Amino acid sequence: MEAYLDNAATTKVKPEVMDVVKIAMTEMYGNPSSLHRKGVEVEKSIKEARKIVAKAIGGKDQEIYFTSGGTESNNIAIRGMVEATRRRGNHLITTKIEHPSVLNTFQYLETKGCKVTYLDVDKRGFISLQQLEDTIAEDTVLVSIMHVNNETGSIQPIKEISQLIKRRNKEILFHIDAIQSFGKIQFNVEEIQLDGLSISGHKIHGPKGIGALYIKKGVKVKPIVTGGGHELGIRPGTENVPGIFGLGEAVKLIFTDQNQYIKNISSLKNHFYSWLDNQLEGVTFNSENNDSFAPNILNVSFSGVKSEVLLHSLEGEGVFVSSGSACSSKKRGYSHVLTAMGLKDEQIDSAIRFSFSDTNTIEQLNYALEKIEKHVSYIRKIMKR
Amino acid sequence: MEAYLDNAATTKVKPEVMDVVKIAMTEMYGNPSSLHRKGVEVEKSIKEARKIVAKAIGGKDQEIYFTSGGTESNNIAIRGMVEATRRRGNHLITTKIEHPSVLNTFQYLETKGCKVTYLDVDKRGFISLQQLEDTIAEDTVLVSIMHVNNETGSIQPIKEISQLIKRRNKEILFHIDAIQSFGKIQFNVEEIQLDGLSISGHKIHGPKGIGALYIKKGVKVKPIVTGGGHELGIRPGTENVPGIFGLGEAVKLIFTDQNQYIKNISSLKNHFYSWLDNQLEGVTFNSENNDSFAPNILNVSFSGVKSEVLLHSLEGEGVFVSSGSACSSKKRGYSHVLTAMGLKDEQIDSAIRFSFSDTNTIEQLNYALEKIEKHVSYIRKIMKR
Ligand SMILES: Cc1ncc(COP(=O)(O)O)c(C=O)c1O
Ligand SMILES: Cc1ncc(COP(=O)(O)O)c(C=O)c1O
Repeated sequence: MEAYLDNAATTKVKPEVMDVVKIAMTEMYGNPSSLHRKGVEVEKSIKEARKIVAKAIGGKDQEIYFTSGGTESNNIAIRGMVEATRRRGNHLITTKIEHPSVLNTFQYLETKGCKVTYLDVDKRGFISLQQLEDTIAEDTVLVSIMHVNNETGSIQPIKEISQLIKRRNKEILFHIDAIQSFGKIQFNVEEIQLDGLSISGHKIHGPKGIGALYIKKGVKVKPIVTGGGHELGIRPGTENVPGIFGLGEAVKLIFTDQNQYIKNISSLKNHFYSWLDNQLEGVTFNSENNDSFAPNILNVSFSGVKSEVLLHSLEGEGVFVSSGSACSSKKRGYSHVLTAMGLKDEQIDSAIRFSFSDTNTIEQLNYALEKIEKHVSYIRKIMKR
Repeated sequence: MEAYLDNAATTKVKPEVMDVVKIAMTEMYGNPSSLHRKGVEVEKSIKEARKIVAKAIGGKDQEIYFTSGGTESNNIAIRGMVEATRRRGNHLITTKIEHPSVLNTFQYLETKGCKVTYLDVDKRGFISLQQLEDTIAEDTVLVSIMHVNNETGSIQPIKEISQLIKRRNKEILFHIDAIQSFGKIQFNVEEIQLDGLSISGHKIHGPKGIGALYIKKGVKVKPIVTGGGHELGIRPGTENVPGIFGLGEAVKLIFTDQNQYIKNISSLKNHFYSWLDNQLEGVTFNSENNDSFAPNILNVSFSGVKSEVLLHSLEGEGVFVSSGSACSSKKRGYSHVLTAMGLKDEQIDSAIRFSFSDTNTIEQLNYALEKIEKHVSYIRKIMKR
């Protein structure tokens, strides 16, 4: 048996998604910019995909731009908004637990003369609204905060954050990295009053190399790539048509019955959590099993068990998990997220992230739990000697 | 019958490419950054693809970076090299016939204070080495010149250009947009002494949304996207694994016997050219049928026939061609390439680009020629009234 429990790192493409990708590659292969039928038909289907994504987040079609992935969406949003608002001010706000595609972009902007505040998080992984409020200044132009953290699943209260920001100054732009939350948490960009939002295909059983960016109508963004004017100039380059079709299909699959989808993954997490909580000693949960955390992510420290050792033991059994985040190209060292939460070294060192998908079965979870029990006991015994 | 003769706009994905894309999406779906087997096996195959691309152009594996396409490759190369050499100088050289992904990038750099020289081309579409020589100045840091033009197929003499540049100043970086030439023209980056080179998957029966960038070892490039350090930091973001596998396979298919491949497309162009030359009146060739032009592109003006009218008439018969370039998102108006060549308005207005691939057959070409004859005569008759 195999149990792939690393769905926050990436997911397997679903058969329905594969089908539309194949159509885009072998039948509807025209260039959407071509004036003839082979181009026009593709252009039409891109519009359909755009509509699906827009509807899923409660935005308008023309507010959705396709990109090459979550990293690029974050970069276009943050760099693009900062370049477009540069004259208004120079101060930016984000958090200490962002994904590297956000964190390193702010660090880059610091080298270009921007002032950046990196908000702290508490032990549970949440920012303080008070600190945010205290931090907002006259020259603040952009706040970018991740919706769901990729390592622990903590959900920042984006609605309250948005209200707070807009109450202080309507002009301040608010962008969220929704790459881990999209699909798994219900939200609506207009209700929350978002100015920008990033999503990525490969986290929701869509293809790798495709993402989308929501930019509220009227909000100005300077592109980071220049070219033939595709995607209204926000993201030029011949469209990744297979990716766009695939993303559209992946979104459709989830949003046809999002409630049921969320129920399914929640019940998997719940099963896994309960078992670990009841059956195993020395388990510390770095995620919670409640509505403040994503329904698909569970970060757990097994005391006395180095995460990499457990990861590789489980791998030998066909159980695939993550130690920290797998989004940052194998950089080892301590998780900046767990560090920001103030966890003790030993706890960080033994943290494993389990992440579920509706393609997982209870049987797979039970198989994984059995192997976890076996290897945790074994490693602990070895280490005691 | 159908005759897709718009292969310079984009190509159909070949079955072998489709197969590896499918494998990447449904079997080898791990995140290459994951520490477990499902990640490691993908990482290994990415290395294989990198090797294939490197070998095809005569570069080293570590000199190849995967990108989201030709447009992004051009942007990373040009913006990235300019930002990295800013302190050395401020003057850049390109041509008037570049693709918008190059042209608009230089125009952007002008707004950032760079001085840019746009070289003229002669009637046949070639730059003057003398003008290039005269243009190179003390503060010149980068020359970017397209290898094969996407509208006419003219091949710039990149070897002579490179020698000229490097003779004047070894420090000047030389980048080429090889998006239309890759596969179709034999060249070797080390022989030519290139510093950067852009390629795109979808022009060679690979997937859309994937490209590659060659950067000579030691040449500094500042990334335009920041994130988790993928592709040595030059292009972060979870890798487009299906795209990378697909690109590798597409390159392999061509380079297993590139000579034969070039012979095949050349003979198609030759057949098409000869027929038009011999059988139809009022035909002006904006491309030539010789070694100074790409073996797959033929730009032709049919006097008295507006290109868009012919394009749509042919479309009705299942023959797909381009009026000008289909890479720039349906912007109408006159081709900047044919304009730079000094063609008369009437000739520009009636220019059609035929572009061939080894998936085309002689039967398809004959079918297309028959329909061209029919519709050209018909449109001319109508217009005369
Ligand atoms: C929260 C978060 N943001 C951004 C990204 C980057 O997205 P992508 O992998 O599509 O580049 C990831 C995952 O990789 C992520 O988990
Ligand atoms: C010469 C040339 N450069 C750049 C590009 C852009 O590449 P891509 O379509 O992969 O963005 C194209 C075609 O679109 C091209 O023909």
